[in-house]
Amino acid sequence: MANEFRYKRRVQFAETDLAGIVHFSNMFRYLDEAEHALWREAGLSIVQPGSDIGWPRLSAALEFRNPLRFEEEFEVWVRIAELKTRTIEYEFTLVRGKSVIAVGTMTSICVRRQPDGTMRAAEIPADVAEKLEPYTADPES
Amino acid sequence: MANEFRYKRRVQFAETDLAGIVHFSNMFRYLDEAEHALWREAGLSIVQPGSDIGWPRLSAALEFRNPLRFEEEFEVWVRIAELKTRTIEYEFTLVRGKSVIAVGTMTSICVRRQPDGTMRAAEIPADVAEKLEPYTADPES
Amino acid sequence: MANEFRYKRRVQFAETDLAGIVHFSNMFRYLDEAEHALWREAGLSIVQPGSDIGWPRLSAALEFRNPLRFEEEFEVWVRIAELKTRTIEYEFTLVRGKSVIAVGTMTSICVRRQPDGTMRAAEIPADVAEKLEPYTADPES
Amino acid sequence: MANEFRYKRRVQFAETDLAGIVHFSNMFRYLDEAEHALWREAGLSIVQPGSDIGWPRLSAALEFRNPLRFEEEFEVWVRIAELKTRTIEYEFTLVRGKSVIAVGTMTSICVRRQPDGTMRAAEIPADVAEKLEPYTADPES
Repeated sequence: MANEFRYKRRVQFAETDLAGIVHFSNMFRYLDEAEHALWREAGLSIVQPGSDIGWPRLSAALEFRNPLRFEEEFEVWVRIAELKTRTIEYEFTLVRGKSVIAVGTMTSICVRRQPDGTMRAAEIPADVAEKLEPYTADPES
Repeated sequence: MANEFRYKRRVQFAETDLAGIVHFSNMFRYLDEAEHALWREAGLSIVQPGSDIGWPRLSAALEFRNPLRFEEEFEVWVRIAELKTRTIEYEFTLVRGKSVIAVGTMTSICVRRQPDGTMRAAEIPADVAEKLEPYTADPES
Repeated sequence: MANEFRYKRRVQFAETDLAGIVHFSNMFRYLDEAEHALWREAGLSIVQPGSDIGWPRLSAALEFRNPLRFEEEFEVWVRIAELKTRTIEYEFTLVRGKSVIAVGTMTSICVRRQPDGTMRAAEIPADVAEKLEPYTADPES
Repeated sequence: MANEFRYKRRVQFAETDLAGIVHFSNMFRYLDEAEHALWREAGLSIVQPGSDIGWPRLSAALEFRNPLRFEEEFEVWVRIAELKTRTIEYEFTLVRGKSVIAVGTMTSICVRRQPDGTMRAAEIPADVAEKLEPYTADPES
């Protein structure tokens, strides 16, 4: 699928736990890393110095199918399931060789700092939406 | 609610990120910690030395409602929504004062090491089920 | 020793690695937590909202004597070896029961944000020094 | 220097803290990762399935010179300062472009599982020593 981004990674020692496998909380860090790598490939960064915009998560969920172990290489496949006015819904598949490790979703929301210092939901800037568009499930060609 | 377990915690510095709030992956660690604290209160441990039983996660999900910041004190409220033959379904609410920080679920499965070294789904031992029973949504009185 | 601060902690599951013990990098997090707990007891916080002062580390070092395992309770004993004009030198001992787990040191430096945005070494504010003084090796009585 | 191993890495979001820079504890994880990458390049792995040998740390120390920030690329330069009968002493330099981020040392010890289950210091196996030899400060040519 042309509109899918693939992030490669190797399991690090400190990411394992006493059960000998990657602790499930680190799988969520892999999603985070994959999202940021997709943004970089799109010519963007989650963090814009001096910007008043942020991208907190509304939700994150994973189903775990197979364990990951130390030094294994795997990929995180990312797709944007829906690019809405204010939110981005990602779909993830973690894959090691032919095994699916986990599948999941994550939703981020665009927030803008208000004059009183609080963050409030805001429209995704047009240039960001445009650069993310190619990673959506049904990109305009 | 008598059958709810409450785990108290304070946000640590290393759990925050450059956005100034707790990184969402650490919220999943809070669930993990709360589960293990519930087990300890029930007279159990997730890790039984010499045991061939383990408790990997099948799934974990959180919805984030409000940010958590450095040094804030909060609670993780845990309940067992369903105690099945082989799985345990937890429900979580993260609370700081009167604010809900996040709500979520996690499902763990009982696995037993087979003679060939692999882990396979197994029945939750009777003594474990009995000790977890008081934390279920509808405990037998 | 009256001038020693003791921070209590329990090992969490995600802090262990596949060797079945706490990953050494997490021991440094325990130092961090203990320092912040000492500051809280002293009526201070490492993070002052709106302040232009920060406390980065200049160095950190640990010698590991014994492993720590899941669910074990331990203490971090902290003392301020030297409170200088701009730096704070901490001494740590991690203890589980009668076993020494690790001993170490950490040096933090007071920095102040300059008009151009950079951080530069600065004198420790008098009120901070006064509140930390009781934890020094040789407090003025 | 021919005998130096260089490990490339990019700073991930979850590794930063509210001060906007990489938390110092994560710098120790970078050392860990670099050591394991060196072992892989040498045709080794810190973890040998079925082996009764382990490589715990005796000590770790870092001096911090400059902060690291989100998405920055950096390198960890590793050298084996001394390869002794039972211990390996590493020297590290973390570098971003022309800036030194941190310098440090780490000592690991070879331990072997005894019949009673305890781990005891043991000689580094000859094949491991041979494969690490090229990374020492003064390799035999």
